[in-house]
Amino acid sequence: MSRVEAYEPTTRTIPTRARDRAAYDHDTVHAILDAGYVCHLGFVRDGSPVVLPTLYGRVGDRLYLHGSSGSRPLRMAGEAAGEARDPGLEVCVTVTHVDGLVLARSAFHHSINYRCVVVHGTAHQVTDPEEKKAALDALVDHVVPGRAADSRPGNAKELAATAVLRLDLREVSAKIRTGGPHDEPEDLALPYWSGVLPVAPVYGAPIPSDDLAPGTPEPAYLSAR
Amino acid sequence: MSRVEAYEPTTRTIPTRARDRAAYDHDTVHAILDAGYVCHLGFVRDGSPVVLPTLYGRVGDRLYLHGSSGSRPLRMAGEAAGEARDPGLEVCVTVTHVDGLVLARSAFHHSINYRCVVVHGTAHQVTDPEEKKAALDALVDHVVPGRAADSRPGNAKELAATAVLRLDLREVSAKIRTGGPHDEPEDLALPYWSGVLPVAPVYGAPIPSDDLAPGTPEPAYLSAR
Repeated sequence: MSRVEAYEPTTRTIPTRARDRAAYDHDTVHAILDAGYVCHLGFVRDGSPVVLPTLYGRVGDRLYLHGSSGSRPLRMAGEAAGEARDPGLEVCVTVTHVDGLVLARSAFHHSINYRCVVVHGTAHQVTDPEEKKAALDALVDHVVPGRAADSRPGNAKELAATAVLRLDLREVSAKIRTGGPHDEPEDLALPYWSGVLPVAPVYGAPIPSDDLAPGTPEPAYLSAR
Repeated sequence: MSRVEAYEPTTRTIPTRARDRAAYDHDTVHAILDAGYVCHLGFVRDGSPVVLPTLYGRVGDRLYLHGSSGSRPLRMAGEAAGEARDPGLEVCVTVTHVDGLVLARSAFHHSINYRCVVVHGTAHQVTDPEEKKAALDALVDHVVPGRAADSRPGNAKELAATAVLRLDLREVSAKIRTGGPHDEPEDLALPYWSGVLPVAPVYGAPIPSDDLAPGTPEPAYLSAR
């Protein structure tokens, strides 16, 4: 018997409204995560919320978040990692893609088409050197698939200067809006245009470094983006 | 004497690293805010961080954040608004634009070109009907400039179902990275391509609603996006 693998909904991941937009199955969640590389990492510092844009990569049911060893969330998790019992850093990681502007005839029914994943959990610093190397490769390949193997790997000093947080995907939900506006029946005859303006990130022509040796071929994985 | 107007840096808005990327002047901060319409709203709920994508608009030195009256952060601020002394909701609002993928010869020096604004502060529910109407117009016009005047304004029931949070811009910083990769001198001779892959949101052709009356003209402000 086939079964859709899904994350267990919790009180935090069941939306208070628009529940029909929520999804928990692995395929939907992973596809949204894999379509991006910048998340917004939320954590609590001195009782106050902090939200920072952060690079991430996914390996199976784990997210790896990138940062300098000197950055605040990484240091906070690092200080925790130094303790006998590592409590980690409680985080909320959100990845959002905007797919379209939804223009209804009424101001009220204007909306956005989007795909979004929210992950709640406790992040831990990756201390195992092999896991850290694999995580950094995954991070680079998440941004530009194929690039990790086509660049100089980090040396010991660079690996020490880079901190990686691991966040297991357990308490996770996706939220998706698609389609056109939902106008009130009595508004349909109004003279306003209604519909969707699609939007998507588009990559331009690669700009070589000034110091790139003439004749260095442009890698195929760049044209593929 | 001319003076650049700027937000006062605080311990929270001075970065622990890459300080040369930070900016506080109004022009830089406002331009980044005005270039987007989806922020990531962070707040603390039961001691844990929550980060949600949220529509926003800017009016002078104020951000207005949009939500349903039923959504969690709006309800939390709303409950507070009901109290004799309104403490508001402590938030961190982050707006990020990704401008390019920076590919260095070394994995370590890979980066992202981006523009980002982080706002710390206390958000309050907008209760004044006139301010709420103006804020909702600003929100719609932030997404599609010119649209607020070209749609049916909200009625009393719709305004009641919409909650708007106000966040004053006081503790604010921008962070910007531009330009190519910064490779180590000893890496310059490596055979890897290096440079920047630019990226930007691009709008497609507008898709009219199925129920749009034939002959309804496509508004000029859509082609302008």
